Amino acid sequence: MNVQQIGEDKLIRRLKRLVPGRADVISGIGDDCAVVRTGRRDPYDLLLKSDPVVEGIHFTPDAKGSAIGHKALGRVMSDLAAMGGEPLWILVDLVSPPTASVARIEAIYKGMSKLAHRYGAAIVGGDTSCGPVLEVHVFAVGRIARGKALLRSGARLGDILYVTGALGGSGMGHHLRFEPRLVEGQWLRKSGLVTAMMDVSDGLATDLRRLSAASGIGAVLDVAQIPVSAAARRLSGRRSGLDHALADGEDFELLFTVPCRKSRAFEAAWHKAFRLSCTRIGEMTAKSGMVELRDGKLVEELTRHGYEHFDHHLQ
Amino acid sequence: MNVQQIGEDKLIRRLKRLVPGRADVISGIGDDCAVVRTGRRDPYDLLLKSDPVVEGIHFTPDAKGSAIGHKALGRVMSDLAAMGGEPLWILVDLVSPPTASVARIEAIYKGMSKLAHRYGAAIVGGDTSCGPVLEVHVFAVGRIARGKALLRSGARLGDILYVTGALGGSGMGHHLRFEPRLVEGQWLRKSGLVTAMMDVSDGLATDLRRLSAASGIGAVLDVAQIPVSAAARRLSGRRSGLDHALADGEDFELLFTVPCRKSRAFEAAWHKAFRLSCTRIGEMTAKSGMVELRDGKLVEELTRHGYEHFDHHLQ
Repeated sequence: MNVQQIGEDKLIRRLKRLVPGRADVISGIGDDCAVVRTGRRDPYDLLLKSDPVVEGIHFTPDAKGSAIGHKALGRVMSDLAAMGGEPLWILVDLVSPPTASVARIEAIYKGMSKLAHRYGAAIVGGDTSCGPVLEVHVFAVGRIARGKALLRSGARLGDILYVTGALGGSGMGHHLRFEPRLVEGQWLRKSGLVTAMMDVSDGLATDLRRLSAASGIGAVLDVAQIPVSAAARRLSGRRSGLDHALADGEDFELLFTVPCRKSRAFEAAWHKAFRLSCTRIGEMTAKSGMVELRDGKLVEELTRHGYEHFDHHLQ
Repeated sequence: MNVQQIGEDKLIRRLKRLVPGRADVISGIGDDCAVVRTGRRDPYDLLLKSDPVVEGIHFTPDAKGSAIGHKALGRVMSDLAAMGGEPLWILVDLVSPPTASVARIEAIYKGMSKLAHRYGAAIVGGDTSCGPVLEVHVFAVGRIARGKALLRSGARLGDILYVTGALGGSGMGHHLRFEPRLVEGQWLRKSGLVTAMMDVSDGLATDLRRLSAASGIGAVLDVAQIPVSAAARRLSGRRSGLDHALADGEDFELLFTVPCRKSRAFEAAWHKAFRLSCTRIGEMTAKSGMVELRDGKLVEELTRHGYEHFDHHLQ
């Protein structure tokens, strides 16, 4: 069996079984970041995350260097945001064809440096190496108040599901320009109202399935409430705007849950704090591992292959 | 100008100027690891390091998966060793052609896991991504007693230069099988006798030039004392064994300095503690940034392009 056939989630589950742990690892492979503990009296846990962008997969050869740098660091910051954390120190492994211009490499570092500076992070090391295509591997260390990291596994039956911003059509430009939701993620953590959180990087459908599975429960989405981005609407044709919003990925918005009894207070506080939209899109259900779509009385399972009836219904 | 023309050291110096810092960064870009401080009362500083291995550069397509994993993690552990530190947590970004077999990827992780387990490190996360050639990017967080990291910059005039093991010919197999000198590095740190340390990864000539430059002084090597490995001797022909020992790289031995007045006590303690050889190869001089070779009364500068007269002299 090869890497393509097994798929990323299954490959990672297999690799996870092979690797050694330590007692100070609070949360290892399988969440947005790893959470580790440094000392008995340290008021913070550390968050560790690495993520690459690869030419031809995460950006095209004509992408601007500064945008590549922004995306490379932004992706990792989005994962720190998804735990409620703040970034501290960054390392960068750059792989580059020997013919790449120094100006392009500098533009990548300028894109990263601008974003790092905005959120108070330092770039402290890394490596440059030759390879056939341009790649930027970013490794970040962040921190979070001890024991307070927001995991994917904390959602409870009846919790209300929220997502920030709008979803879908990221390939039209958002994937290179998005703002990691660090401010919002830290605010959500401090609010004490959030039970589970992750960022939407592989599409709402896939990521919500992961959050539900990690929490051992299910979820239902209200079709009419899903915030479809303007880009996704413009793209709609063969595939609906909703389909783009569910499946496109690279939204880098926050997906999280709040207990139902606290949801009204949460919504009021959010709207006072931010202009960014935050939309109630559904709730957590008892159907373990299942994600459903609901439109009034019509409810249908959202499978890995999509949804049969709603697509037509919503055209 | 492109990446090949400018060279790695110069490129890194240019990128270093672009990146933001933080007050808690004790040592950033330019040493074996970055050193950062977590809290006012933490008894440890953290060491951060990332390094890739790329197919076609650091290993050939026929290399065993377990050896690739060993090398990928071993390189980073060697850098932690070079500060006197111990490894804690590891992240791995794997880039793989979609056609790579799952068994090969698992073998890579087994190679890493075996080495991680030996030194008590946990593999806590990472990412898998598709790309044209196999690459393993390893990110490590280690720790060191607060303020005690052994930097390249601490060597003083008259300090004695030592190197562990033997040098040269690593391409014959050592580069896939070397043992990172973590035990020795921590012992050296605790001895309190070492003023500067780094690992020999790009060849003694290049790396000693870096240690000298970081310390703002020079160094002289005793030609007859340089421990030429058996592999380098076997390779000698067009290039001498000495040339292999000076230039080959990927030795992953420790290069360090000890004040002259403590050198005899140091040597006695080392030989009591380890069977691994540790060789006195020269001393630090006042000629800032210059590395010289000495054979009795004959002294010659070792330039970036090699050494003119010794090569013949030693054939």
